[in-house]
Amino acid sequence: VRTIRIGLLGCGTVGGGFVRLLERNRSLIRQRAEAELEITRILVRDLEKRRDGIDRSLLTVRAEDVVRNGVDIVVELIGGTEPARSYIREALATRKHVITANKAVLAHAGRDLLELAAIHRVRLGFEASVCGAIPVVRVIRDGLAGNRVRSITAIVNGTCNYILNRMGESGAQFDDALREAQAKGLAEADATLDIDGEDAAQKITILARLAFGSLETRWLRREGIRQVTPEDHLRAASQGSVVRQVVSAREHDGTIELEVGPRLLPLQHPLARVRGEGNGVILQTDAAGELVLYGAGAGSLPSASSVLADLVEIARAL
Amino acid sequence: VRTIRIGLLGCGTVGGGFVRLLERNRSLIRQRAEAELEITRILVRDLEKRRDGIDRSLLTVRAEDVVRNGVDIVVELIGGTEPARSYIREALATRKHVITANKAVLAHAGRDLLELAAIHRVRLGFEASVCGAIPVVRVIRDGLAGNRVRSITAIVNGTCNYILNRMGESGAQFDDALREAQAKGLAEADATLDIDGEDAAQKITILARLAFGSLETRWLRREGIRQVTPEDHLRAASQGSVVRQVVSAREHDGTIELEVGPRLLPLQHPLARVRGEGNGVILQTDAAGELVLYGAGAGSLPSASSVLADLVEIARAL
Repeated sequence: VRTIRIGLLGCGTVGGGFVRLLERNRSLIRQRAEAELEITRILVRDLEKRRDGIDRSLLTVRAEDVVRNGVDIVVELIGGTEPARSYIREALATRKHVITANKAVLAHAGRDLLELAAIHRVRLGFEASVCGAIPVVRVIRDGLAGNRVRSITAIVNGTCNYILNRMGESGAQFDDALREAQAKGLAEADATLDIDGEDAAQKITILARLAFGSLETRWLRREGIRQVTPEDHLRAASQGSVVRQVVSAREHDGTIELEVGPRLLPLQHPLARVRGEGNGVILQTDAAGELVLYGAGAGSLPSASSVLADLVEIARAL
Repeated sequence: VRTIRIGLLGCGTVGGGFVRLLERNRSLIRQRAEAELEITRILVRDLEKRRDGIDRSLLTVRAEDVVRNGVDIVVELIGGTEPARSYIREALATRKHVITANKAVLAHAGRDLLELAAIHRVRLGFEASVCGAIPVVRVIRDGLAGNRVRSITAIVNGTCNYILNRMGESGAQFDDALREAQAKGLAEADATLDIDGEDAAQKITILARLAFGSLETRWLRREGIRQVTPEDHLRAASQGSVVRQVVSAREHDGTIELEVGPRLLPLQHPLARVRGEGNGVILQTDAAGELVLYGAGAGSLPSASSVLADLVEIARAL
């Protein structure tokens, strides 16, 4: 059995889940990847922090120990645009395959990075960057390869969905529902990127590029959910609807039209059924018709599941 | 651009849809497949039958003209176990990749055919054999490659789902709902394979093998829906439930336990929401958690969409 060497950048929620999942399902993954997958080095910020189930001898605080090492695949789970973008560029330029869960870097520099990967004939996997465990990148890229996608309508931010669900159920104020999400670990202490719609905007940008190619994008609407009040929810309920943060993308006259913001959904709408911090995606296509996907939008193991999907695919092709 | 030659066996509902879809989305498919896909020969039973949009000069009634021809890929859309199985075997044995929508042949001889494909280092694609346009084969095989699947619960037969939906909505007798499905083209004149559960049994067998490997299978229950009465639906409704044909598979003590038959589903159950002739699949997994997929379960273009998914994947790898 071949051994494939993996360098891991970041060992937080997703990184830790990735290491544990790879260990737990080792024999099954070996069989599917037709290779032994070995993590050779892990970049962390703090060497002293307690990390259950992680081999401390693999830890380093120097990115070059991970990226410049003789690895075959670099898994980037740091997040944020820099230094993640530089690390990814360096890995691709030195002919390492890269897997990333980083929606910010993909939304801002995805085209450049995909070009760089193509030039160096390596792959850039990003299933984990959108919709957690839902393999929506594969569904669009592979499952719908014979289709023209007409539109994507989705709930892609679990934090916003949890907050708006709670407000609708309990009549809570926005700030109280946000604090509840934070107490449950569903929102960061600084939840600005979620509630201002930036996280959702990045995700729909990634999905739209995948479905519609490299056309110019145009924002028809780009709003956060901070202004949603208990009265908005009451008014929605009186009309048999709920308020949810919805993203959408469609091709129109040669541009990709994007939207993100709070929206009224009738109770029977497929996205009105997305509970708590879940995600849901509706794809309208010319041949397959309507496909609807639901699943966990975030979390340690769900995101790790999508990283593994990319890893097994790349390992099989090596 | 390379040209990849395709031999097509069968030009009925799915075959005709496949030819039309390949033509309609030609430039998009060329780009994604990185090749020109050319249908070189089409096996039909009746040369004289009217077939809109099909080049008559490609038609033949001799299978060997299609399979023995210098094709790269054979697409088998005849259905039934024989002669389809023999054609597939011959194609694989002469190192042609095969794509099939044939659930009967896969349920009965899938393991042999996959072995034969492995021996000759060619691929056997079967996305279109289960759940029409829903790319459930890819979701299990690729999207969940890092997961242990715990169970599959699904509605895989659109005809049965349509009949049971109609009975529940209108209080119709089984036979009347069946005739209605036939009038709408949703059921064959001989719908025995659907309503006796055979079609559903074949599909869950295929999905279970994909998810759980080559363990022995054991049927816990294998029933048709013919005995379902309007009174059963009324009783279900009084409990806030509906009656649906449900299939399931789970691993237990080293065997795959399978079930097919009518089942009570609470109205809030994800599968209770599958409308008309649609399909729905719930996958329970160890890392990704619960994934739910809905889509068109059958039909000309939805099934062709899944054939194209296999075709683009195989063409890219050639």
